[in-house]
Amino acid sequence: MIKVGIIGAKGYAGKELIRLCLKHNQIELISLMDLVNEPEPLGDTFPEFIHLKHLVIEPANTEKLVAQTEVVFLALPHKAAQSYAGTLFRNGIRVIDLSADFRFRDLALYEKIYNVEHKEKEIARQAVYGLAEINRQSIRNARLISVPGCYPTSVLLGLAPLALARVKIIPPIIADSKSGVSGAGRKPTDNTHFPECNESLQPYSIGKHRHQPEIEEKLREMSGNEDKNLKVIFTPHLIPMNRGILSTIYIKLTENTPFQKIQEIYQAQYEKETFIRLLPEGKYPATKNVVYTNFCDIYLQKIYDHLLIVITAIDNLIKGAAGQALQCFNICYDIPETTGLL
Amino acid sequence: MIKVGIIGAKGYAGKELIRLCLKHNQIELISLMDLVNEPEPLGDTFPEFIHLKHLVIEPANTEKLVAQTEVVFLALPHKAAQSYAGTLFRNGIRVIDLSADFRFRDLALYEKIYNVEHKEKEIARQAVYGLAEINRQSIRNARLISVPGCYPTSVLLGLAPLALARVKIIPPIIADSKSGVSGAGRKPTDNTHFPECNESLQPYSIGKHRHQPEIEEKLREMSGNEDKNLKVIFTPHLIPMNRGILSTIYIKLTENTPFQKIQEIYQAQYEKETFIRLLPEGKYPATKNVVYTNFCDIYLQKIYDHLLIVITAIDNLIKGAAGQALQCFNICYDIPETTGLL
Amino acid sequence: MIKVGIIGAKGYAGKELIRLCLKHNQIELISLMDLVNEPEPLGDTFPEFIHLKHLVIEPANTEKLVAQTEVVFLALPHKAAQSYAGTLFRNGIRVIDLSADFRFRDLALYEKIYNVEHKEKEIARQAVYGLAEINRQSIRNARLISVPGCYPTSVLLGLAPLALARVKIIPPIIADSKSGVSGAGRKPTDNTHFPECNESLQPYSIGKHRHQPEIEEKLREMSGNEDKNLKVIFTPHLIPMNRGILSTIYIKLTENTPFQKIQEIYQAQYEKETFIRLLPEGKYPATKNVVYTNFCDIYLQKIYDHLLIVITAIDNLIKGAAGQALQCFNICYDIPETTGLL
Amino acid sequence: MIKVGIIGAKGYAGKELIRLCLKHNQIELISLMDLVNEPEPLGDTFPEFIHLKHLVIEPANTEKLVAQTEVVFLALPHKAAQSYAGTLFRNGIRVIDLSADFRFRDLALYEKIYNVEHKEKEIARQAVYGLAEINRQSIRNARLISVPGCYPTSVLLGLAPLALARVKIIPPIIADSKSGVSGAGRKPTDNTHFPECNESLQPYSIGKHRHQPEIEEKLREMSGNEDKNLKVIFTPHLIPMNRGILSTIYIKLTENTPFQKIQEIYQAQYEKETFIRLLPEGKYPATKNVVYTNFCDIYLQKIYDHLLIVITAIDNLIKGAAGQALQCFNICYDIPETTGLL
Repeated sequence: MIKVGIIGAKGYAGKELIRLCLKHNQIELISLMDLVNEPEPLGDTFPEFIHLKHLVIEPANTEKLVAQTEVVFLALPHKAAQSYAGTLFRNGIRVIDLSADFRFRDLALYEKIYNVEHKEKEIARQAVYGLAEINRQSIRNARLISVPGCYPTSVLLGLAPLALARVKIIPPIIADSKSGVSGAGRKPTDNTHFPECNESLQPYSIGKHRHQPEIEEKLREMSGNEDKNLKVIFTPHLIPMNRGILSTIYIKLTENTPFQKIQEIYQAQYEKETFIRLLPEGKYPATKNVVYTNFCDIYLQKIYDHLLIVITAIDNLIKGAAGQALQCFNICYDIPETTGLL
Repeated sequence: MIKVGIIGAKGYAGKELIRLCLKHNQIELISLMDLVNEPEPLGDTFPEFIHLKHLVIEPANTEKLVAQTEVVFLALPHKAAQSYAGTLFRNGIRVIDLSADFRFRDLALYEKIYNVEHKEKEIARQAVYGLAEINRQSIRNARLISVPGCYPTSVLLGLAPLALARVKIIPPIIADSKSGVSGAGRKPTDNTHFPECNESLQPYSIGKHRHQPEIEEKLREMSGNEDKNLKVIFTPHLIPMNRGILSTIYIKLTENTPFQKIQEIYQAQYEKETFIRLLPEGKYPATKNVVYTNFCDIYLQKIYDHLLIVITAIDNLIKGAAGQALQCFNICYDIPETTGLL
Repeated sequence: MIKVGIIGAKGYAGKELIRLCLKHNQIELISLMDLVNEPEPLGDTFPEFIHLKHLVIEPANTEKLVAQTEVVFLALPHKAAQSYAGTLFRNGIRVIDLSADFRFRDLALYEKIYNVEHKEKEIARQAVYGLAEINRQSIRNARLISVPGCYPTSVLLGLAPLALARVKIIPPIIADSKSGVSGAGRKPTDNTHFPECNESLQPYSIGKHRHQPEIEEKLREMSGNEDKNLKVIFTPHLIPMNRGILSTIYIKLTENTPFQKIQEIYQAQYEKETFIRLLPEGKYPATKNVVYTNFCDIYLQKIYDHLLIVITAIDNLIKGAAGQALQCFNICYDIPETTGLL
Repeated sequence: MIKVGIIGAKGYAGKELIRLCLKHNQIELISLMDLVNEPEPLGDTFPEFIHLKHLVIEPANTEKLVAQTEVVFLALPHKAAQSYAGTLFRNGIRVIDLSADFRFRDLALYEKIYNVEHKEKEIARQAVYGLAEINRQSIRNARLISVPGCYPTSVLLGLAPLALARVKIIPPIIADSKSGVSGAGRKPTDNTHFPECNESLQPYSIGKHRHQPEIEEKLREMSGNEDKNLKVIFTPHLIPMNRGILSTIYIKLTENTPFQKIQEIYQAQYEKETFIRLLPEGKYPATKNVVYTNFCDIYLQKIYDHLLIVITAIDNLIKGAAGQALQCFNICYDIPETTGLL
């Protein structure tokens, strides 16, 4: 049994981490923590766990975690994650971080986008981007894993086979993404007040969502950095449902590659991946088919000669957060990758 | 044209008041106000009005209202309404108040329930309870009208014919009410955060909701105060929808009154009422049939010998707030009662 | 491993049965069947299972089930279940039936309510009502288990402690129940068409829902059949959400029993039950806390001297159908009762 | 008063037509018809109209309409509309048709896409496409108006200023559209069954939706038919809400036109249009701001040098159907265009 701690247990990603860890047969959940002053019963925050009377959310305490755990999941806001990750990392704890703090290779870009100084640059350089199906080899020995954002996961899994196969495209790629409201976190805001977002649909942060540069940096890396100017137009939309992200991605191919060739590229990349389901023709993805699972459903369609549409669907809190984090955990510990996730 | 002002234009009831007043052919909307420090374009708060560039929400200013208007609608939180109502009333302005501040005849009860001192007791004694179909005569000449709460409207319209006809019942009456989330107001809270209330259903304030004593006081008045101990068990539930209240009311009759007799009592009371629709057998009420309208749909069913079920459906923001307020306005000014409401 | 078959795999309860069986470590799922003419890939009906390419829904075939399985779950409409249950039962297969066909002890009442002849009366007399927490002893050796309806489960679990303890009440009991739309099944109808039930709320089948006599018969049995006329007023409401039932139950006590005494009765009945959670004061039940689980949350509150409110929340498809069926299965096979359900 | 009839009163567009006509001060609603065998009270189909006891849906009867009305709105499925339109038109009745039957100039294309023979080709050639803000002049004297589809309205209003100003673009244009479920009509289907579409999001008819060629034909006309190969990639998505369409449209400009120039083109086109609201920077469109209105909200944003994003929001049943039909009616009769629509 591997001893595990969580800091950030009071958020939605934290809740899913707890749920998944409790069902994982190799995990001993040692401690749940968050930025609180006093211990709180877990059931006060999440009444679905009210029967787990022994589970308490404690004030974040790295000493305890260093003493008692082997791995810590961080589900904290960006900036807050940095120092906890740093301290734990330096004390030999493996860190799986769900924040944005260690996602960027280009730390100056991180600092600009998140408008915050990065105080753990040395450690950041050792972080591995936990896009499980793509970076499995690096994840295996990583001591600090940075789990991708929910939107980037949905977009990158849709584009990775093309990028890795160096399929030539005419930028920009257009990623029109639609997300359920839990993606906005557990803190009430005007935009997530029920009567404001129920029965409505709206785009937000057009052209300036923080996930856009994350997507672009990773995509460039996958494609060998040949096209420094590879651009992605990322338009997120808020959908009146709790969970799920569907990304409709439009790619203009340079050459009229036969559709069959495209399909083969995706199959070659994903056919052995349990959590990626390439859907057959006419079976369009729907978020209902992936919520509460770690699956990413992918659909391909070519229109006219040069236009490829890739549609992906994931659960933003599972494959887009806690599930992918646990998948990375399984990879690190050489546990079958689906453990606790199927 | 009657010159009208609104204080409390930034809440959901305020929004509906604005919408209704703009369509009312006898109203000149002079001023929109709220507890703000600086004037704000109305479209900033409610983008559906963004084309009405001339409409601005001003800081509340009773002097201006006294100088320029004849009637003021108050859509403020309880306690805040008191002083505005007092000042306006003393300066000869007719006040139609949507708060709880003037709903109680028993001011000590008000003070206990709302845990606040009532500072305008003299004026409160002159307030008329604006349950339009029942109190039409008193409303006609009222200078201060206190519009009933949304839940009380839905329950009282369902029970008024029985109470007024002095039908004998065995208390307590049980009112199981279900409301859309806009009833909780425009301020985001944990309970009204989309992922917390969407796809769920919960009761709240069982046995202690502030509307329960309001219902009881008014019901006792209607029934001639013969039963000082008339009790209503009121259980509100939060439903994942924006608008609408459905109240399922269970009444135990003392005698086995024939159902036809009950129906006649309701017909006698309501057959001339445009906004009350007594539904025929088998046509159950649904909130979708009344939202965005001033209708109250009522369904009657007798079960066994002594158990009467009355089900009512209203729009909590229209018949349960702004619409009923406007209906009272029409009554005061001897304008056809449906003006602006059909 | 116990070999299991399912007839009725294409409905919502069938889907949950499949999901649960697949995660159950003592079950070998031999065959999925339904009333189809040709085999169909499971993923065609339920795309969330599209990766389980080996799973096929076959035409119902009792011979195959008799030859290859030990237990069969039936998730068929009433009437259709009878003959399958009969054939399987006579051939020594243990049957766990989710239909209404074997729920009634009074078969004449069944025939009247469901307007259908009962063709397996002999077998019906051997059926055990699978309300797991209450009938555990009888379930243990049952060869035919009739799983309660979703509404009856939610109401009976709320009332059983009172009935078993012979607490005197003044009838009728009022059960105001609210259900998500999946309770209406997978067949599209006018009432369950999205634009018709979304953003609305309505009661249905008032005083004549088929679950009302089921509730009454079982309640009378639990209370020792002392009160032949024990009546329950059952009012179901359709709520715009997918899953979950919340029942608000009003009971008039004959005597002013202290609330503490009531609480003790419930604690005595349920304190050892994993799947029943008695909620502490102020922690109201919400369906979101029980969906996708086999829990039944129960809340008690006394109002005035004699009025007790019991509120229960379950997932209609799990505790109200497939989960309870599996719980019964675990009881029969002396497997820890929570296997596959926590 | 202009005497009006409706055939197709039982659908969702029909319902909105009825609602709007009843509030229109120049319309006398003579007759509601649909493809029924016997007269039916309107309130049976739409209980929100139950108080309008005099309104009955009659079997479609062109003779009566010819004798008693001046204008007929047709809200019938494609193909069914043809013959009614033909008969009425030939008898001198002005027809405003909401079906697809008269939307195409290229009738062979219509026949191919809808897989049906067009039996009124002569009349079809006299039809005017009722995109009100763009074709106002032609609508004024039209005897047969073909109201655009909901999706085409949302896309064409977003692109018309560019097309009319002959702004050069690099095809294809990408229109990623999201619609509420009422767009699928009133007939229950598997896809629109509440538990299937609630809490989910899915694309459909990718690259082959019937509205795509309608959009392309009209766009080519507006741009002077210079680019015969102008292509639009149209991807519709089903959103779990009742009403509203949001279209996110991506256009690649040939030249790096300054954003201010683009804004001026839209302002020049729309600044006098009451029903088009060009939103200021940062005020993203949301369907909640336009539902139940005839407004089309439009937002413009340029990304990088050449990529223009246009986002539009309309109510699919009002601006996308009944409201636009009434707007055309007002234009024809030289009634102020907003009559009955504000």
